[in-house]
Amino acid sequence: MNDFTLGIGDKNLSSWSLRPWFLMTQAGIPFTEENIRLDRPETRGILKEKSPSGLVPYLIHGDVKIWDSLAIMEYLNELFPEKQLWPEDRQARALARSVAAEMHSGFSALRAVWPMMVTRKDMRHTTQSGVARDIERVDHLWSLCRKTYGAGGDFLFGRFSIADAIYAPVASRFTTYGPVELSPEAASYRDMMMALPAMQKWIEGAKAELAAG
Amino acid sequence: MNDFTLGIGDKNLSSWSLRPWFLMTQAGIPFTEENIRLDRPETRGILKEKSPSGLVPYLIHGDVKIWDSLAIMEYLNELFPEKQLWPEDRQARALARSVAAEMHSGFSALRAVWPMMVTRKDMRHTTQSGVARDIERVDHLWSLCRKTYGAGGDFLFGRFSIADAIYAPVASRFTTYGPVELSPEAASYRDMMMALPAMQKWIEGAKAELAAG
Repeated sequence: MNDFTLGIGDKNLSSWSLRPWFLMTQAGIPFTEENIRLDRPETRGILKEKSPSGLVPYLIHGDVKIWDSLAIMEYLNELFPEKQLWPEDRQARALARSVAAEMHSGFSALRAVWPMMVTRKDMRHTTQSGVARDIERVDHLWSLCRKTYGAGGDFLFGRFSIADAIYAPVASRFTTYGPVELSPEAASYRDMMMALPAMQKWIEGAKAELAAG
Repeated sequence: MNDFTLGIGDKNLSSWSLRPWFLMTQAGIPFTEENIRLDRPETRGILKEKSPSGLVPYLIHGDVKIWDSLAIMEYLNELFPEKQLWPEDRQARALARSVAAEMHSGFSALRAVWPMMVTRKDMRHTTQSGVARDIERVDHLWSLCRKTYGAGGDFLFGRFSIADAIYAPVASRFTTYGPVELSPEAASYRDMMMALPAMQKWIEGAKAELAAG
């Protein structure tokens, strides 16, 4: 039953794809990758055939087809309770879902003005007011979670959780664009996330795709 | 422990607030309403004091403060398993979470061009191409869910679920703006949703707020 296929877009650009890929890789859930190169003449036709929403990411598991990164991650949380993909404590889990859902529906300035480009580190960019507010809010949330539930560990809720996977693309943006002035707590979290083997593997994949053209 | 306070914005306009309010009302979960009138000089200060995110909706339950409509609804699903706020069947639940998460992160054209105004039924509006695509997609999802899991009933998954609460503001938009050409299946779902006592109660509340100025 552990036969998962995860459909994802270009690794350099697809922040929605990074989330479930990062979760499954970091949590040790094996899957087959289905790579869809976006913005090509054939993309729309391929997605229409393969993805239930016409978008990436999607997860295929036997007869079950799930789309949208958050629904995919909730599904995996149900299938692998032993991995505690959400925090075990109910109050911590409520906070984790709050910060995750806020990212899912919000931060529109950050997303629009600073698109994810995982292979770049040299983009200097003025922070328009909306972006500055989003950065401040992310910094607040990262610091709040780590201080309240981080238990002195690296991750937002002590051990690795879906909340970390949700914010992985933001850690990447804070590396690509700059300089971003973060609190020491948030800067340390960003650097820890970028150094994880899963993130490095994704970035290598992005470079390989770009080299292949 | 069932002492819930739900913070919500103006009933005529706040589509995010309608979702958890609708869920709790329709599912019979008692709560105290905290009404925040938006876009007033004092709004920002009030929200900063009361809401953990500075936004509506938020839910306060003892020491637990949760924000973002989807996180609130997942929390209630955990607290009231007997109410089956998500479908009981795993595959149906995966689809329900997919359509819910897609609404949470998507349909930006529909949301931007057709703001919710529950007291109005007479807004005629050209459907720019993005809106037309969003309408078509919603129609497809509603029809798909009802035909696959609706069990001949009124709701998307047979019995009332979080997926219905998520799409309540869309049912309202499809009543406010028009004419919207929907399939018979989707039109019937819209009309059923609008006729529910919970929706009528919300609309009455919106009218009362507007009359109070």
